[in-house]
Amino acid sequence: MKNLIIGQSGGPTSVMNSSLYGAVMEAFNQDEIGNIYGMENGIQGLLKGKIIDIVDKIFFGGGNLELLMTTPGAYLGTSKYKLSDDFNHPDYEKIFKILEEYEIGYFLYIGGNHSMDTVEKLNRYAKMHDIDVIFVGIPKTIDNNMIETDHVPGYGSAAKYIANTVREIVTDACVYDVSSVTIVELMGRMSGWLTATSALARKFKGDNPALIYLPEAVFDPEEFLKDVERCFEDKTQVVVCVSEGIHDKDGKLISEYGGEAEYDILGQRLISGCAKYLEKLVKERFHVKTRAIEMNVPQRCSVSMMSKTDQQEAVMCGTYATKLAIRRMTGKVVSLVRVMEDPYLASCGMENVEDVANQSKRFPVEWISENGCDVTEDFLKYITPLIQGYIVFPMSNEGIPTFLYR
Amino acid sequence: MKNLIIGQSGGPTSVMNSSLYGAVMEAFNQDEIGNIYGMENGIQGLLKGKIIDIVDKIFFGGGNLELLMTTPGAYLGTSKYKLSDDFNHPDYEKIFKILEEYEIGYFLYIGGNHSMDTVEKLNRYAKMHDIDVIFVGIPKTIDNNMIETDHVPGYGSAAKYIANTVREIVTDACVYDVSSVTIVELMGRMSGWLTATSALARKFKGDNPALIYLPEAVFDPEEFLKDVERCFEDKTQVVVCVSEGIHDKDGKLISEYGGEAEYDILGQRLISGCAKYLEKLVKERFHVKTRAIEMNVPQRCSVSMMSKTDQQEAVMCGTYATKLAIRRMTGKVVSLVRVMEDPYLASCGMENVEDVANQSKRFPVEWISENGCDVTEDFLKYITPLIQGYIVFPMSNEGIPTFLYR
Repeated sequence: MKNLIIGQSGGPTSVMNSSLYGAVMEAFNQDEIGNIYGMENGIQGLLKGKIIDIVDKIFFGGGNLELLMTTPGAYLGTSKYKLSDDFNHPDYEKIFKILEEYEIGYFLYIGGNHSMDTVEKLNRYAKMHDIDVIFVGIPKTIDNNMIETDHVPGYGSAAKYIANTVREIVTDACVYDVSSVTIVELMGRMSGWLTATSALARKFKGDNPALIYLPEAVFDPEEFLKDVERCFEDKTQVVVCVSEGIHDKDGKLISEYGGEAEYDILGQRLISGCAKYLEKLVKERFHVKTRAIEMNVPQRCSVSMMSKTDQQEAVMCGTYATKLAIRRMTGKVVSLVRVMEDPYLASCGMENVEDVANQSKRFPVEWISENGCDVTEDFLKYITPLIQGYIVFPMSNEGIPTFLYR
Repeated sequence: MKNLIIGQSGGPTSVMNSSLYGAVMEAFNQDEIGNIYGMENGIQGLLKGKIIDIVDKIFFGGGNLELLMTTPGAYLGTSKYKLSDDFNHPDYEKIFKILEEYEIGYFLYIGGNHSMDTVEKLNRYAKMHDIDVIFVGIPKTIDNNMIETDHVPGYGSAAKYIANTVREIVTDACVYDVSSVTIVELMGRMSGWLTATSALARKFKGDNPALIYLPEAVFDPEEFLKDVERCFEDKTQVVVCVSEGIHDKDGKLISEYGGEAEYDILGQRLISGCAKYLEKLVKERFHVKTRAIEMNVPQRCSVSMMSKTDQQEAVMCGTYATKLAIRRMTGKVVSLVRVMEDPYLASCGMENVEDVANQSKRFPVEWISENGCDVTEDFLKYITPLIQGYIVFPMSNEGIPTFLYR
């Protein structure tokens, strides 16, 4: 009887621990599976031999596994480590030696497009070397940019958080009887999936946010100022939502208009700051109260607005991955299929990981309104079911939610 | 039979509409009170004759008054308008003419230290001119800086939001096995009441946030870097919480270290940005992944983490204000008195508005730990009861909370 190992990879979401919960619970209930291990910090930790005995640690360690479903982030920790394209790289031998040592027969990996690259490579290597390990990917990202799936677990909760928080920001922006522009910057380097959800914040037709700009459309600062001016015709307070990755017709990021491109210590270009630049632009043109708000990391790690639909689908994807593993479906990634529209129903499907890895799905251009500063009804129909349902979460004595931690 | 008018003033909170609800419901049930009016945008709107018939608008207008209790911001709108110190200013005659026209006998005003200045002046003017109107203030602020009260409605919910969000940010900061410093900037120009609540985010002793800095202590950038270095001895990820108003021993704001002081269009000095400056400082010194997060307006307008205790006390203060008004207690402001510690119990008291107006209560220095970068157990004992209890709020069809709006 072989053991199962599971890892988490890439940026956190509100529900990636729900997928971990689903996969582990299903494995625990399957006679075909021996012990259940977790990699600390994904493949990077595995390479260092940092492996947790989940059964021992949580089931028998006094932990409450159910808490995973209301704990954001990554219980096991993640990494962004990319395996070499060269199969002669020592990483591969090292990884499979450790898998052999722990008698692993099933390898599950929760992650997005880049993490699926790891699943694909390990699966290919195993096949080439006739190693009997099953590899299955579990989809995860707030960005909703994986292909071959209707949507991705993590997106619904991020969408709900953004919709709710923008509605609150609008309420805040409207308390004074003073003309103002509030610019909310949302995550999304290449794609406007997250920013588009701010349209859900409207309480009635014509409500704020009045303007929504995604990276899938060209952003023209002069047109933007005209859009704002038009909004002032029937609004005192104008709230604008922008993706961090909006850019002009030449592809230059608006965040770079304010000065030189900045880089983080890993050499990755920092892309945030467009709201700050637009704030300056608006203030100079209209001389009104202006505020830039960068929503920042809470949009990917808040559980306060977790979508029950999203949580349940995340659990379902984890459960399904274990089921596929037992049925020896290797090199696969779980997908979500929208089976019915009204009432909404989704079920799990299965795709080849080599089709999904390293791909990216952009926001459909036909869901951007003609004027380029809004989204269409069709998008609202798509997103609304994904944010339904509400979670009441366990509170600690201090009055704030209890999180499970290693 | 005289009518009642109520207004909201100053910055929004999560529960200032709960106080409105309490005051209006009590007034509706009192035979001594005729109609109930609301000022749009406080005293500024009143001066323009912008008055809403609340009974007509909400009770009989199909609105659901209960929704006020889960709607953040200010249903009536607020203003920061300051009445003149000179009673010959035309504003006074104008205001009392309008009050006479609407046959107002009771004037309730929900606000903080500066808004109580309005209550105090109007009350004094009425007494001088023998005008029969009762003036009562209802306390409100996220800053908890009003004197003569144990705490202020609005603070508990802001505290709960901060504690929860910082806990989430810590979870997010810890997903990668990479050294990092995350600096969270919280509201508080003069006082650390809000920033102090981030200590509640810790899941265990020694957990992040590892460092907490308030404006009540002098901030020394070099000492700060030493504090961070010490944290790295037993932590891979360090989360720091700072008030926007931290300053050096000469009183210079840390936010101004990065460049010139900025001003908004009303000439008010912009005080945010210290986290951005500290991010630069840390990156240069430690060459680690560094992120500045400005929590921004959600800390004062989010309902997702509303404290039930705070909400109920806000309702109670509103209710009590109407009761005081009927009992002809003019020139008063409602206070909260902590009657019992364990189990916690608070009741309403009454203070003279001239004692409270324009005063400000700072965070007690004895609640700052000796090393200057943490808060004491005594503060945690004080704050913990104020964030207890959880609200399940009504959701719209779109899956996000329903707000009541004018």
